[in-house]
Amino acid sequence: MSVVEQMKLFLEPRSIAAVGISRQTGPQAYNLLENLLHYGYEGRLYPVNPNAKEILGVKTYPAVGEIPEVADVALISLPRNLVVPVVQDCLQKGIKAIVIITQGFADADDVEGPQLQRRIVDMAKAAGARILGPNTFGVANAQLKMSTSYIRIPMEVNGIGTVSQTGGTFVGLNDIRLVGKVVDVGDACDVDAVDSLHYFEQDPDTRVVVLHVEGMPDAKGFLAAVRRVALKKPILCIKTGRSAQSARAVQSHTGAMTGSDLLWDVALRDAGAIRVNDIEELSDAARAFLRLPPPRGNGIGVTTYTGGFGIIAADACGRYGMDLVEFSEPTMAALKALSPEWLGVGNPVDIWPGVSIMGHSRQEMETTVLRHVLSDPKVHAAMAVISAYEPRLGDEHLAMIRDVARDFPDKPFVYFMYGMHFEEVRRTLESTGTTLAFPSPERAVRALMHLKRRADYLARHIARTGSPPRR
Amino acid sequence: MSVVEQMKLFLEPRSIAAVGISRQTGPQAYNLLENLLHYGYEGRLYPVNPNAKEILGVKTYPAVGEIPEVADVALISLPRNLVVPVVQDCLQKGIKAIVIITQGFADADDVEGPQLQRRIVDMAKAAGARILGPNTFGVANAQLKMSTSYIRIPMEVNGIGTVSQTGGTFVGLNDIRLVGKVVDVGDACDVDAVDSLHYFEQDPDTRVVVLHVEGMPDAKGFLAAVRRVALKKPILCIKTGRSAQSARAVQSHTGAMTGSDLLWDVALRDAGAIRVNDIEELSDAARAFLRLPPPRGNGIGVTTYTGGFGIIAADACGRYGMDLVEFSEPTMAALKALSPEWLGVGNPVDIWPGVSIMGHSRQEMETTVLRHVLSDPKVHAAMAVISAYEPRLGDEHLAMIRDVARDFPDKPFVYFMYGMHFEEVRRTLESTGTTLAFPSPERAVRALMHLKRRADYLARHIARTGSPPRR
Repeated sequence: MSVVEQMKLFLEPRSIAAVGISRQTGPQAYNLLENLLHYGYEGRLYPVNPNAKEILGVKTYPAVGEIPEVADVALISLPRNLVVPVVQDCLQKGIKAIVIITQGFADADDVEGPQLQRRIVDMAKAAGARILGPNTFGVANAQLKMSTSYIRIPMEVNGIGTVSQTGGTFVGLNDIRLVGKVVDVGDACDVDAVDSLHYFEQDPDTRVVVLHVEGMPDAKGFLAAVRRVALKKPILCIKTGRSAQSARAVQSHTGAMTGSDLLWDVALRDAGAIRVNDIEELSDAARAFLRLPPPRGNGIGVTTYTGGFGIIAADACGRYGMDLVEFSEPTMAALKALSPEWLGVGNPVDIWPGVSIMGHSRQEMETTVLRHVLSDPKVHAAMAVISAYEPRLGDEHLAMIRDVARDFPDKPFVYFMYGMHFEEVRRTLESTGTTLAFPSPERAVRALMHLKRRADYLARHIARTGSPPRR
Repeated sequence: MSVVEQMKLFLEPRSIAAVGISRQTGPQAYNLLENLLHYGYEGRLYPVNPNAKEILGVKTYPAVGEIPEVADVALISLPRNLVVPVVQDCLQKGIKAIVIITQGFADADDVEGPQLQRRIVDMAKAAGARILGPNTFGVANAQLKMSTSYIRIPMEVNGIGTVSQTGGTFVGLNDIRLVGKVVDVGDACDVDAVDSLHYFEQDPDTRVVVLHVEGMPDAKGFLAAVRRVALKKPILCIKTGRSAQSARAVQSHTGAMTGSDLLWDVALRDAGAIRVNDIEELSDAARAFLRLPPPRGNGIGVTTYTGGFGIIAADACGRYGMDLVEFSEPTMAALKALSPEWLGVGNPVDIWPGVSIMGHSRQEMETTVLRHVLSDPKVHAAMAVISAYEPRLGDEHLAMIRDVARDFPDKPFVYFMYGMHFEEVRRTLESTGTTLAFPSPERAVRALMHLKRRADYLARHIARTGSPPRR
């Protein structure tokens, strides 16, 4: 079986055997079966529990051997000293994909944990099966309405494929669901990030790959896989264990070695991954890659309701290498026509005098100015600085924003919004499907920078090889 | 009249003359009188409009001279060519504090604007009056339910005093209201940041000063004022116009020169101000100073539900100079007693096995472990990494958190929360009044770092002078 076929058993199972399903249900029971029923997973479910006939209306089996088919994947969630015999049962049954959720193997503080883990790996290898974990939340796939995590999570079919060494990613970040699809490699005794990258490389649903890495025993093989996938899809990488003290913590988390942080930095960039420094940068960049077109250059135009916040925005442009261009003559003429005579028009463009003095409506001023700015050939991307002091935008306003995006399909524009109604206004704005809003100019410009850098990376590849990367 | 008495006329007016109040009201009319009535300002209001007898039920006057008292402050919101004669009227009436909201003076692109501005300043000086602006949102004071901004803003009595060169600060940031009290110095033709600092220095309601600076004609006098105030209250400073291109934008915004960014960096730190790089850092730090005690050292303990996010948190500690201490023996013993035997207990402390394997409830595990960590003499601050995958915390849980804070009054603790219910869980958590929650570990630790640095600054002052700063 190819690696991809093997990984499909984990990520696209038609049937699941779940060993260690308790009769306890409800809050704080963390019942995997209950979760799968809750999501509406449509595959076949075979809970294993020798002390029950049915749980939540689903027939249970006393042992894996009694299940009427060879399930695509087996989940094992049992105290660690019971895991080995159950793995044996699964292998005897012919199951080729086994998720060991249980903690306390290579991540444990004693001799026995690592020993048990080696034994399991040897058994699986001999039977041609693969092990995911131990110490893992397993896998999730929003399209199948399936997650093997204890914790009930929100999922969203969104084009994100995540490879992780932590279950935290299942729960997701504040602004984005990382499921999509997720593999938590846990202690990575067998299935690892490279296998997972193989899967996401070919998966037509995955448009952006998110990679959480603590340490990597085979850095060379890993980087080769990253290099290959990065030519097809953006890879956002959060590599942790940067300092000496956090590297010690990694050791006790998954038993992995972190390696030199600086070397990782260089190697990841060289391989075409986009290394992000924190989870907000990660979710901002992921949202940008899902939603916005890549800019063709680093020229940026900024429109603003307040001069002061326009300058804060200009500082952010400077920090992230976007060039606050001087507008061309036709752009300047158009902007001047909308403003009082005394206004020193430039970039950033102050749009408030056009509203307060010239009497243009806010929605008209915002979208007309944005349109003029994006029309400028020097401008490759735009940021609008607006306040969120009213709770929503009107339908007409949203339609105007959609029209701007339609007319400039290769120029991303984003919003920096301030004020107490941020979350509500962001929701309505982003419902257009054409733009993103951020709570600071730094985050808005940083997201544009990542789009630009990715475009540059692909351009360099074409320059070097003479051909665009295969899709 | 002393500077402070003069500034009180602006910030604590008992009566307001408002020149240029339109009869138009409702959305997009930006009517200052309507706003003041809406807030419930309880002082006396004198709108001036020669074409109306009353507006919104308030008697209007044809000219400033007709008002039956000398108002504490006059607001002028008129086209720029009408401003000079009205300033003259105000001065003749004996008004000593004048806010010129109108744009288009030193910030204009022509010769006339700056000329008009000089004339106004000369007139006021001769009459012993002060001018705030032009090109300003004016002032706001949540305690008086008063704001002179066009834009209707949310206010909150919260101990923040803001000095700004932009009206954007009136609208506030996403996580915090900067009003409190605000002075927008605008073009700063007369009243400037130094005058405003004088006011906030002595104002008993102000516990944290927020300073937004673009440029400063008298940097030396400004820094001396900062140095004096910083010994009494934390000053958070956002100094913009960092790059060459944004410095150009400042020039056209308020006519100020920005100066060398590096020199500003050194000078502000030397004067005891806390320079922040972006508005999220600003609001995070302001919230920390309002809510949390200063830590006595940089030792930090981290508790977490996921090893992976614990390591991300450890990375953040390394980045911001907090020391992830090795726990003392009694702490280790207490933590081990709560965990399965095989768990490698350390810092960060993984609390999930205590829930999933040992059967402790989440609220019990979270607060008991936090308590053990804070009991460690090496620990001066703590961060708890928790998921926000359920929409709220129960009352019992909140009471337990309050108790922890009560028992460790000199050790701040904060939360890094991830997951889709972040906003809701944060609101309930912060309703305890004793802690803060952040959407990334970087932001949580950075806020603690600012508290620590401020404590260090005051300690150095005591070491140098032998006496604590006056309060």
